[in-house]
Amino acid sequence: MAEQLATELPIKRPREEELGKNSAVISSIEMGDAEQIPNGFSSVISGWFSEISPMWPGEAHSLKVEKILFRGKSDFQDVMVFQSSTYGKVLVLDGVIQLTERDECAYQEMITHLPLCSIPSPKKVLVIGGGDGGVLREVARHSSVEQIDICEIDKMVVDVSKQFFPDVAVGYDDPRVVLHIGDGVAFLKAVPEGTYDAIIVDSSDPIGPAQELFEKPFFESVAKALRPGGVVCTQAESIWLHMHIIEDIVANCRQTFKGSVNYAWTTVPTYPSGVIGFMLCSTEGPPVDFKHPTNPIDADDGLSKTTQPLKFYNSEIHSAAFCLPSFAKKVIDSKAN
Amino acid sequence: MAEQLATELPIKRPREEELGKNSAVISSIEMGDAEQIPNGFSSVISGWFSEISPMWPGEAHSLKVEKILFRGKSDFQDVMVFQSSTYGKVLVLDGVIQLTERDECAYQEMITHLPLCSIPSPKKVLVIGGGDGGVLREVARHSSVEQIDICEIDKMVVDVSKQFFPDVAVGYDDPRVVLHIGDGVAFLKAVPEGTYDAIIVDSSDPIGPAQELFEKPFFESVAKALRPGGVVCTQAESIWLHMHIIEDIVANCRQTFKGSVNYAWTTVPTYPSGVIGFMLCSTEGPPVDFKHPTNPIDADDGLSKTTQPLKFYNSEIHSAAFCLPSFAKKVIDSKAN
Repeated sequence: MAEQLATELPIKRPREEELGKNSAVISSIEMGDAEQIPNGFSSVISGWFSEISPMWPGEAHSLKVEKILFRGKSDFQDVMVFQSSTYGKVLVLDGVIQLTERDECAYQEMITHLPLCSIPSPKKVLVIGGGDGGVLREVARHSSVEQIDICEIDKMVVDVSKQFFPDVAVGYDDPRVVLHIGDGVAFLKAVPEGTYDAIIVDSSDPIGPAQELFEKPFFESVAKALRPGGVVCTQAESIWLHMHIIEDIVANCRQTFKGSVNYAWTTVPTYPSGVIGFMLCSTEGPPVDFKHPTNPIDADDGLSKTTQPLKFYNSEIHSAAFCLPSFAKKVIDSKAN
Repeated sequence: MAEQLATELPIKRPREEELGKNSAVISSIEMGDAEQIPNGFSSVISGWFSEISPMWPGEAHSLKVEKILFRGKSDFQDVMVFQSSTYGKVLVLDGVIQLTERDECAYQEMITHLPLCSIPSPKKVLVIGGGDGGVLREVARHSSVEQIDICEIDKMVVDVSKQFFPDVAVGYDDPRVVLHIGDGVAFLKAVPEGTYDAIIVDSSDPIGPAQELFEKPFFESVAKALRPGGVVCTQAESIWLHMHIIEDIVANCRQTFKGSVNYAWTTVPTYPSGVIGFMLCSTEGPPVDFKHPTNPIDADDGLSKTTQPLKFYNSEIHSAAFCLPSFAKKVIDSKAN
């Protein structure tokens, strides 16, 4: 089905005027040793994929492409999957790498276990975004969890992940998972107050379909949907590239979440600048000390036949993730508690 | 002087057969919006610099070039400086980025203060490599230090840094610094046993002039040159890319250093995979607990009119640097203590 879509959809190169609003321009590196892909809307030519965006001007990370496995245009974004020569299969949305098989463990394990290991016995968990299923795979390791809702806006991301990333989309196999295709903002508004123990916002960058997920009204809906002392973890960009965005997110969260407000970060080589951050906040209620995990998870916890042991996360790296370089600490401490 | 050198030296593109042994191939990204640089040995054409190497196959990080400021070929390597559009000035050796003005703080501060803050009152410090002077700048913050020797093999790196990176090469202005131009391996052999409190090995990658600095005989010379309970910190590659190299380094160090042997890492966006690691070892003698700095430094310590406060390092990030992702911890723990 997915393969078919790719050929049916209009194939185009982004127009100049689109470059500012999309985080999506795919360029090429002239290498001379690989075939030119004809007619490619994302212009992966000459064998390399390059990630160029106004979100990180003046720099680009490139991966060598073995084969393009899927290209399509959903109602929301451009979707591409390619086999890279050294990072396994790669999922690209609007020209921006979302995951590679080689380093996805860092992101998925940290965005999930930082919140879930910080509260005792999480039972009801909501994932916003995260259509690839990797966060679901990680949530499912927690045996205390009884209900895992996921609200992903783009069905094509789910379908493509199930087809090309079985080790990631394995998260959907867990019987506790209920998938809702739709807008996360609208979904949250309909959630009865105090429903969830934890909400994980696994979004793309704040230009494109995920924009609202970085704004204050969204954080307010999140806070409402959490039980007292419940926790949220949201993707929160790079300390090297986006301190101005982070500063705003921290200020918004500080106003919205009456428990604690913290920033953590980790290494993901295929994300711009090689790092990605997370906002971790709790609502008023039982205090949450994010820096000292109260609900540790072992590498082998909740393993099924189809999931592997944890590759990246452990309790030490949990605590370490909250230690910030001085330049970031200064800005964040001035906005947070 | 340095500018003059560039035009006198033979300008060439690396030959195909050199690609395996050098970590130096500079490619181009076809952007179409920048002028072509004529006659460039490092083929920075069409406005972007790309870092491609057999040390990190299948991926490349690229920076947009505003202007090439220097190109030369020393007796040891190709040397280039360019003005990038978003990372300030960039120093490139053999096609590999050594530092950018925007993120050099992370590397220089961590490689220096991880060892120096781990022992009380360091007095005699040796830097091997580090010709740009950034490590000297950081060592000079420590008021206990009486003698700072540096042994850099390539005078062109020193000259170019003084000319183009005054905020880095400011390290040379400290009156405690004595510069030795020469081979670090030979220099160390001539050092009387037990001379130094700390040795910092700020090397490039282990293909090219720095190769010997990753081998066991070199570590043995380092151990001899240190006083009992003295410490060494060496550049030790990326956990994402070079676990096989790291495994060997850890095994060598474990055999050579009878105190403690540890691996730490930090984020540097313009290094491949976005991280760089350090081996931190101590010789037999007073025990050293690297993870808990005994000699903390404040952001404003040892400030002169020409140096800025610390931007990256603090005591929290010192300890956090030793917390490893599970996949790396497993390999390193099996080789270290």
